[in-house]
Amino acid sequence: MHPSPLLAELITALQFLPGIGPKSAQRIAFHLLEQQRDKALRLSDVLRLAAERIGHCARCRTFCEEEICQLCRNPNRDGSVVCVVENPLDVAAIEQAADFRGRYFVLMGRLSPIDGMTPASIGIPLLEQRLREGEVAELIVATGTTMEGEATAHYLREIAAEHGVRATRIAHGVPIGGELEFVDSSTLSRALASRHEY
Amino acid sequence: MHPSPLLAELITALQFLPGIGPKSAQRIAFHLLEQQRDKALRLSDVLRLAAERIGHCARCRTFCEEEICQLCRNPNRDGSVVCVVENPLDVAAIEQAADFRGRYFVLMGRLSPIDGMTPASIGIPLLEQRLREGEVAELIVATGTTMEGEATAHYLREIAAEHGVRATRIAHGVPIGGELEFVDSSTLSRALASRHEY
Repeated sequence: MHPSPLLAELITALQFLPGIGPKSAQRIAFHLLEQQRDKALRLSDVLRLAAERIGHCARCRTFCEEEICQLCRNPNRDGSVVCVVENPLDVAAIEQAADFRGRYFVLMGRLSPIDGMTPASIGIPLLEQRLREGEVAELIVATGTTMEGEATAHYLREIAAEHGVRATRIAHGVPIGGELEFVDSSTLSRALASRHEY
Repeated sequence: MHPSPLLAELITALQFLPGIGPKSAQRIAFHLLEQQRDKALRLSDVLRLAAERIGHCARCRTFCEEEICQLCRNPNRDGSVVCVVENPLDVAAIEQAADFRGRYFVLMGRLSPIDGMTPASIGIPLLEQRLREGEVAELIVATGTTMEGEATAHYLREIAAEHGVRATRIAHGVPIGGELEFVDSSTLSRALASRHEY
């Protein structure tokens, strides 16, 4: 029992955050109350704003509080290359790598009929509309390597072919700086199968 | 760059939480937006309430949104035994161990003149007032074993002596279930020095 019901409530609410268990929640709550009340209030405000206002970009489906996201509005990005990813975290990861100058399409999931994820729920109609516009010359398929990710990749390749758009798949293999002995066997067999002239 | 400034702000604000770095903050933000908007709103509300309303118990100084905390108001606790701890997390830890039925006094810190932590800032006047009331027969000193924690413990022993109150110190030694070979050397020497008849 905590001597303060409100504190107990805060500790419970902090456990809504993924990866935060009871012990961490308690530590976080006390830390905020001891030293960071202003930051707790700031976080409270931003959380509310974000939960209420952030929707999806009408063009690429990523998280965005405006009609069209900043990436889609940026005139310096190359609209002829569109990279299709599963979720906004993938966009962030690719943007951090920093040398991709094309545009994105975010599926917000992957095909998985068992979980009710149909082509419509991953935004395929919107993607097809974009392909019909004629600007897109290459569709980079960057879905994951799970079974559903690969199934989605195959599906995207067919969609691209239907619209006469070139489809490419990001390379999978041994990570840069990775020691062969520590690489898992499925990555290694993929790396061997995808070997190229050197 | 994130395509949404509000999302970038949320990721920054989540990093106010101790132990949450940029990667975790990003993961948490996306998780909340994807699946848990209602929980994000709930957390926002509780955070604001807690930061605005939680103060300190006028009797034991622990975190509490009322004048006097639930532990201090509980008539079933034994007011003759008062356990002095450094912070509210210690109260929670002792309460979880569940067999202490006395009351608490929370220093909200420890003596450390260099950091400006004087007897007044750890609530000694309030503690002395409580000792003068005459109900307290035993003061259990449960401050930490850091240099400051020990200095605070010595100071509390003197305060108790001045008021004719018995002071005790919680035992330090090998943890229950702990293998000797894994116990650090200062704990081991303390355990040896504090050996008792058996």
